[in-house]
Amino acid sequence: MSTTSSSDPASTGAETVLRAAASAGATVCFANPGTTEMPIVGALDAPVGVRAVLGLFEGVCTGAADGYGRMLSKPALTLLHLGPGLANGLANLHNARRARTPILNIVGDHASWHLKYDAPLTSDIESLARPVSGWYRAVAAAQNLWSDTLDGMAAAMAAPGQVATLVVPVDFQQLPAPRQARRDAVQLVTRRVDDARVSEARRVLQAGRPVVILLGDRALSERGQLAAGRIAAATGARLYSETFPARTERGGGLPDIDRLPYFPEVAIKALADCVVVLAGAIAPVAYFGYEGLPSELAPAASLLSLADPGDPADEALERLADELGAARAVAGVVRCEHSIDAGPLSPQMVGRILANALPDNAIVSVEGGTCGYPFVTASAVAARHTILTNTGGAIGQGLPVALGAAVACPDRRVFALQSDGSAQYTIQSLWTMARERLPVVMLITSNRRYAILQTELTRAGIEPGPQARRLTLLDDPPLDWASLARGYGVPAMSASTGAELHTLLGEALKHTEGPTLIEMRLN
Amino acid sequence: MSTTSSSDPASTGAETVLRAAASAGATVCFANPGTTEMPIVGALDAPVGVRAVLGLFEGVCTGAADGYGRMLSKPALTLLHLGPGLANGLANLHNARRARTPILNIVGDHASWHLKYDAPLTSDIESLARPVSGWYRAVAAAQNLWSDTLDGMAAAMAAPGQVATLVVPVDFQQLPAPRQARRDAVQLVTRRVDDARVSEARRVLQAGRPVVILLGDRALSERGQLAAGRIAAATGARLYSETFPARTERGGGLPDIDRLPYFPEVAIKALADCVVVLAGAIAPVAYFGYEGLPSELAPAASLLSLADPGDPADEALERLADELGAARAVAGVVRCEHSIDAGPLSPQMVGRILANALPDNAIVSVEGGTCGYPFVTASAVAARHTILTNTGGAIGQGLPVALGAAVACPDRRVFALQSDGSAQYTIQSLWTMARERLPVVMLITSNRRYAILQTELTRAGIEPGPQARRLTLLDDPPLDWASLARGYGVPAMSASTGAELHTLLGEALKHTEGPTLIEMRLN
Repeated sequence: MSTTSSSDPASTGAETVLRAAASAGATVCFANPGTTEMPIVGALDAPVGVRAVLGLFEGVCTGAADGYGRMLSKPALTLLHLGPGLANGLANLHNARRARTPILNIVGDHASWHLKYDAPLTSDIESLARPVSGWYRAVAAAQNLWSDTLDGMAAAMAAPGQVATLVVPVDFQQLPAPRQARRDAVQLVTRRVDDARVSEARRVLQAGRPVVILLGDRALSERGQLAAGRIAAATGARLYSETFPARTERGGGLPDIDRLPYFPEVAIKALADCVVVLAGAIAPVAYFGYEGLPSELAPAASLLSLADPGDPADEALERLADELGAARAVAGVVRCEHSIDAGPLSPQMVGRILANALPDNAIVSVEGGTCGYPFVTASAVAARHTILTNTGGAIGQGLPVALGAAVACPDRRVFALQSDGSAQYTIQSLWTMARERLPVVMLITSNRRYAILQTELTRAGIEPGPQARRLTLLDDPPLDWASLARGYGVPAMSASTGAELHTLLGEALKHTEGPTLIEMRLN
Repeated sequence: MSTTSSSDPASTGAETVLRAAASAGATVCFANPGTTEMPIVGALDAPVGVRAVLGLFEGVCTGAADGYGRMLSKPALTLLHLGPGLANGLANLHNARRARTPILNIVGDHASWHLKYDAPLTSDIESLARPVSGWYRAVAAAQNLWSDTLDGMAAAMAAPGQVATLVVPVDFQQLPAPRQARRDAVQLVTRRVDDARVSEARRVLQAGRPVVILLGDRALSERGQLAAGRIAAATGARLYSETFPARTERGGGLPDIDRLPYFPEVAIKALADCVVVLAGAIAPVAYFGYEGLPSELAPAASLLSLADPGDPADEALERLADELGAARAVAGVVRCEHSIDAGPLSPQMVGRILANALPDNAIVSVEGGTCGYPFVTASAVAARHTILTNTGGAIGQGLPVALGAAVACPDRRVFALQSDGSAQYTIQSLWTMARERLPVVMLITSNRRYAILQTELTRAGIEPGPQARRLTLLDDPPLDWASLARGYGVPAMSASTGAELHTLLGEALKHTEGPTLIEMRLN
């Protein structure tokens, strides 16, 4: 948001894009460029203060930008090559959209005068970008580059945060494009606590009706959770976190707030006959529709919104706690070590061993149901940590998000607790972690199957025949994780027992010069 | 296109989709399914005759369908999970669209009644699909499934072939959905040779003006090339192939038809002052726009179309040769062995060694400029083979296309001549090749850089600084191809010299029970 002198000599469009983005706070660009981005690639060496991080696949770049944006609440840039390059990044942009992460995608395009010839790489970039982009613009002239880029950064950062996509034809990148002095700063609107909503929530809580407070977005900050804990202690309200929060703090004495269950029948039961106060969360709906079960997990009439995503839900909860006269401090969860079993690994044991091993202020990117739920259950008593989850269901998000979080927070240890099937969609993340010497500890749940699909086949009452069953199995051939990791320059180890995992996690934590991968072999 | 009895008992929608597709000729489904496709997964074990091939990433599935469709001129199915799953397959669908490959994508969606709740995986599938799909439909009711699927197959197969996308909500997959007897067959329109165009081309050729015939699509079949060779011999017309043909026959006595050069200045020179007769090719345009160079490689006034893509261009060329009174047979290129150098590998030497090693009727999927051009130059004197190239410029296409070609043609040896950078986008292809025991020989050009980007930086007059240069280098860490291959269950070898490559290719060809990877280390 800082502004610099407006008397720069005219620079190229490419440099202007980077300077504008940097002036609005961008310092990192996750890039997988091609021919139409070469001027921007060249301009990265101008003294604009943007660090380039190369990904071997665009989904790594967009997922990393998501992880980065969640941790720092400001946009990273991505640099992508026309429609197909953007297309490869869309799945993780879908997740980022659901996480409301600020990101500014810079997509190079053909020279403006070349587009009408429909050359091989020409495509309808807008149609591809719109479903994931809250803001989209194709630059119409080089002289707009400064203001278009600032508009894109402002759009990305507008509460609650969103994906913005700016398409920059290569000819404009090459033309002179001076900054526009009148548009030096990104102006953001600050949202305030809504007093009327706080009062309404207070009335409901004081009326003695059973209440669930569903926490999302800023309500899952330390401040939000502490305030929610006060309210719960004072009123008996039950607390739930969204099932897949973009970011949540956990452990280190915070209240143990369960995630709303994934399967609708259980979630509906958890919310039945309650007023559901939404604090930074949206109305909860079933992840998938199942015949005979409602999509809305709580009736619309039972919902009461205290704060929307992007609102200061944590302040709203604090105000509510104060108005309720709740005690200033409540006893949080006491940190303790889980007892562990040295025998064959189970998901529960993985969760406990990782919870025990977390150093202060760790970040854990969680993707995959097999070990994800047991870990979150176990981590309430761990040291304070931040959990990042898969918000949009497009799998292949956990490793890139860990990568981006590690770039964003070099002083914090980052873990990726990752299922084997989903890891494959963006496996190239390992290479960038090695290249950037990011000390990420990857824990791969190797059960050699798409366990969620086996569950869903059963739920659908389908008795799988040989072809259907084989579509859920990853055991022929089994993925050799140690070799894959070595292929990308990442040291790897394998654990089959609790004792081994405990030991290997200790060794991995000593390794601070780059990533480590631990394959956790489950049956 | 065969039809079976129309007295089947009512089956589920899922089974009806598969039966309809099978009745129109589909026998393979490249699948990466999720929850919303479980009924179709279950139905794959009904006796419908569709083989399921699992990919660990959707781009593998769509690229494989492209390779399959190019070889058999009929659609494979893909089975993809909602918008994000489709999104991961878009880049290779972009290539398939440019190749005019028949493909029918089956995309599962939320239950129709669940869509409006905007659950995490909900997205605008149509907006994502349209840029790559010549035909798109979201199924509106279970009773439409039979006819919608037949329409999709017909659209995919309509000349010249296209990508069709059918979105099937999961509730319709589960409902009873009988076939509709009146819509049992897919009707295709056969295109005919246009006599007037043939006559016009004959007049131009007989007028003695310099002529280039640009061959694409069916003109690159054996029949088309032989006819073009007769015309060239009789008239002095020069022949070029499209720069990136979807499929071309080569070697085994066919004429040596150069590809139109990639860079526009050279291509413009090649076509200057000529009448350009388009035989199954479209008007040639520059791959990228470069300041000061026209986008059109030949002036519009110099173009004469003999046959459009999808027309029987081979027949049109034969008719033209006959009308010109061209000799029935002309001497093709004589098959011979290149002399090879046992020393350090160069791209030229790779091309020659591979050309020497090709058995009869090999298929070679070529992606990457470093070794691709030298191979095509060298392969004119090789045994008869089929070359498949990257038609749309979305990289990560060569390995999946090789996979799909191997599924389509189990009796032919398939090679993938693949650059290291582009191989990474769909590296998961290796696993499916191993799983399906496909004897693909992968030759990875390991030069540890994005060579094309270094070329383009130079062309743009950019002197790269440290960040820009690092964005073109893949050497930190170097990709360890032998380990990556092992990770996916593929035996791997490494060659640094011509002697080694020659020996390893011989060994790889003896291995018929699955894929082999040879890393070719170039400086």
